[in-house]
Amino acid sequence: MNSLSLLKRASRYFDDYPSLAKLVVVCTISGGGYVAYADANGTGGSPPVLEEIKKKKVVVLGTGWAGTSFLKKLDNPSYDVQVISPRNYFAFTPLLPSVTCGTVEARSIVEPIRSIVRKKSIDVKYWEAECFKIDAENKKVHCRPNPDSSQNGKEEFVVDYDYLVIAMGGCPNTFNTPGVVENCNFLKEVEDAQQIRQSVINSFEKASLPTLSDEERKRILHFVIVGGGPTGVEFAAELHDFVNEDLVKLYPAAKDFVKITLLEASDHILNMFDKRITDFAESKFQRDGIDMKLGSMVVKVSDKEISTKVRGNSGEITTIPYGMVVWSTGIGTHPVIRDFMQKIGQSNRRALATDEWLRVEGCGSIYALGDCATINQRKVMEDIAAIFKKADKDNSGTLTVKEFREVIKDICERYPQLELYLKSKKMRDIADLLKMAKGDVAKEAIELNIEEFKKALSEVDSQMKNHPATAQVAAQQGTYLAKCFNRMEEAEKNPEGPIRFREEGRHRFRPFRYILNPVRI
Amino acid sequence: MNSLSLLKRASRYFDDYPSLAKLVVVCTISGGGYVAYADANGTGGSPPVLEEIKKKKVVVLGTGWAGTSFLKKLDNPSYDVQVISPRNYFAFTPLLPSVTCGTVEARSIVEPIRSIVRKKSIDVKYWEAECFKIDAENKKVHCRPNPDSSQNGKEEFVVDYDYLVIAMGGCPNTFNTPGVVENCNFLKEVEDAQQIRQSVINSFEKASLPTLSDEERKRILHFVIVGGGPTGVEFAAELHDFVNEDLVKLYPAAKDFVKITLLEASDHILNMFDKRITDFAESKFQRDGIDMKLGSMVVKVSDKEISTKVRGNSGEITTIPYGMVVWSTGIGTHPVIRDFMQKIGQSNRRALATDEWLRVEGCGSIYALGDCATINQRKVMEDIAAIFKKADKDNSGTLTVKEFREVIKDICERYPQLELYLKSKKMRDIADLLKMAKGDVAKEAIELNIEEFKKALSEVDSQMKNHPATAQVAAQQGTYLAKCFNRMEEAEKNPEGPIRFREEGRHRFRPFRYILNPVRI
Repeated sequence: MNSLSLLKRASRYFDDYPSLAKLVVVCTISGGGYVAYADANGTGGSPPVLEEIKKKKVVVLGTGWAGTSFLKKLDNPSYDVQVISPRNYFAFTPLLPSVTCGTVEARSIVEPIRSIVRKKSIDVKYWEAECFKIDAENKKVHCRPNPDSSQNGKEEFVVDYDYLVIAMGGCPNTFNTPGVVENCNFLKEVEDAQQIRQSVINSFEKASLPTLSDEERKRILHFVIVGGGPTGVEFAAELHDFVNEDLVKLYPAAKDFVKITLLEASDHILNMFDKRITDFAESKFQRDGIDMKLGSMVVKVSDKEISTKVRGNSGEITTIPYGMVVWSTGIGTHPVIRDFMQKIGQSNRRALATDEWLRVEGCGSIYALGDCATINQRKVMEDIAAIFKKADKDNSGTLTVKEFREVIKDICERYPQLELYLKSKKMRDIADLLKMAKGDVAKEAIELNIEEFKKALSEVDSQMKNHPATAQVAAQQGTYLAKCFNRMEEAEKNPEGPIRFREEGRHRFRPFRYILNPVRI
Repeated sequence: MNSLSLLKRASRYFDDYPSLAKLVVVCTISGGGYVAYADANGTGGSPPVLEEIKKKKVVVLGTGWAGTSFLKKLDNPSYDVQVISPRNYFAFTPLLPSVTCGTVEARSIVEPIRSIVRKKSIDVKYWEAECFKIDAENKKVHCRPNPDSSQNGKEEFVVDYDYLVIAMGGCPNTFNTPGVVENCNFLKEVEDAQQIRQSVINSFEKASLPTLSDEERKRILHFVIVGGGPTGVEFAAELHDFVNEDLVKLYPAAKDFVKITLLEASDHILNMFDKRITDFAESKFQRDGIDMKLGSMVVKVSDKEISTKVRGNSGEITTIPYGMVVWSTGIGTHPVIRDFMQKIGQSNRRALATDEWLRVEGCGSIYALGDCATINQRKVMEDIAAIFKKADKDNSGTLTVKEFREVIKDICERYPQLELYLKSKKMRDIADLLKMAKGDVAKEAIELNIEEFKKALSEVDSQMKNHPATAQVAAQQGTYLAKCFNRMEEAEKNPEGPIRFREEGRHRFRPFRYILNPVRI
């Protein structure tokens, strides 16, 4: 059989001929006339070389949603791009829970970065390595080869950048709970999903062995999920289907021993979503017999037991025997990011703080996006005097409705919370006034002084909300940043952003705005 | 997205209702009349229980080609079957080399044992465990749970048998070459193939890093295959295609550094096959630029170098720098089989010796098949006197052609080498004589005495040949043995095998004969 298929392949085989470098000969006869030779790649001759030297070096750290969408959309040939990530593929992470149960094959949710790089018309290089130090002072990142692929120790190297794009995502957040790293499965990487799949099947095999007590079988087939976020909930649902549709057929004796428990520290699962989604999921889980323990905080995990503290239960600790735990309680900070944050004075945060243009605060040429960053939105109240001053064109010390209306678009663009605020009940009068005053000289002349202006907007900043740490946000940020990079020079000359209230002129770009895809039920 | 797909699944979901145990009520009114209740499974009432007690316990060790084909064909309900194997799936091993390069997905070449078990109409249980001791004296096998699936130490258990079927296959044969286990990849299991795939890609990533010297790149991209058998050759061919059709596109800079070397200790690759196949493969490899080093024996493998001794080179050692080695030099003996062989006095062999009925020599109720066994074929010359005596029906001390012809079928069946021998040039006269003598009284009366008979057959046993250690042989043996087990009782009464030459009566079954599938080129 072996030899046969070898023979079969003989026909498939083809020799590849190196494509001949196309030689372009340009002859022009004008003035003295000259002959120029250059190969099609443009590496011959001196002018292109000079041009290459001038290329700005963009280094991208990470190949997740943010890094990959940035890479895909970047198409300005004036950059020399280097992508550094220990993972040489992009993974469609929302399908990870489906990989845990074999609904979707791991291979189907990954895309090699080198396939993406190959299709780019601009200069992109990829290194399979992890960045372990960001040196913002000297504009360098320190890297080492992936430990997995390195057969002979660690060979570190340094990459220079003009712009650094940090899109490294997060790592599992254990809240320093003892025993989590040693005993729990995570669900962040493709390998994690494959590992979970193997563990589930192993549990069923183990529970089928002839020597065990029913007690022990029950323990082994007790699957515990910690964290009622989308990942944990989706995994619990997949596991329930996997057990009840597939595994009970193969392990009929195991059916009565299986139990799935979901531990959630807050009062509801999926509490970042609309209440209707939470209600649906909770009642479905109840019907399915998935045991939801709400208000349960895990305090310790040993190899066979998980200890929880139930809220309002006078701090009593309950221990639950388990066979397998999947831990998905959100996102922690990468050590390299934590180090970098310490250096730039952001050590008391979970993620890198950026402005609305995704620039890391205090670092001119470093951008951060996706799960490793949060946008530190500028508060209206901090800039209220500057805004008032800029709006008060005639320097009268008061603001007419007309003057206000003329800058309202820029204010809303710069401070998105204002747009939401104007839609709130409290502001309906003012919003209506701004709308209706148009053309009505009397209404347009209504005046506000700075104190009244402050008072009217006093609660505007309560509308500020961080973006959720989702694939959608990361992908939109990557696309946004790539578009900014593509138009960098152009926007320098013709800025397209809102008025700078505290300085002169306009911002180069519009700030990042997350567009929420409406949830269809 | 997560929540959406959860919602989608809501429609897919169905509750499974436990099928109600069918209660069969049998009422007969005869004599005093009685009412019997029994559930459909037949576990209620005493007669079925008594019947179950009488069932013979068959224990099968292994779920490879031999064990699985035995299991699939076994359909006699008078057995209580238990399958023990650390691998809960059957793997279509000839496709393993294709899995190394992603031509075939691992999932496509495996079949869960429990799916096979589920379809059986007879009693079959499966334990995911490894047998670590065979106790033939007490008819027990000692097992322990798969270390991978055991979360809490090793819990050993003992299984009784009436018949034991050993089909554990082999393990990689390192010939005790230093450094092989530590530094080489094997290609026996599905995990091995996946590991190789990852290693090949890791090598390309590693070689692409910016800091390496060309020398180092060359080393990392030097793939060495040790062993020119079907597995090694098939892998070399797959790797060549993978590199030249896929990887050079993703790693264009690596192309000039890749090298594939095949080391074979004998004079030719694929030397167990027809010479035409060897010639084809060797010339194809030459065209492809795969470096075949024939007559090269590996003496040592370090983490970066492989040392070989080339035959006829006055024992000089050559060292070759490499990036990755795949070691496929044939089959070694499992430790548990080695222990068992020592106990039954077969310690100087590579595999368990069985008779032609696959019974382990000296162990009445133990069968062995597949790669862990070889059939110790009975020599004609050892039984020549008994054969002569049995054929000489009139006890004349001489054998007429007629008498010989009457037993020739049984002899050929019992000693397959005779059939081949009769076809050889040397024996053409005798074969023709036997054929033509039919009905010709003069020719039928030609006589041979025992010395002449011995002389005529003196070279017959040189035709004996061990079966190759292939999937085909193992699968045929499994099927053969299952058919014997299915007809065990019947064949006891009506034996279907050839005459017993050294004893009275007939053998219960025909001996195992391997049917070579003609190789189509």
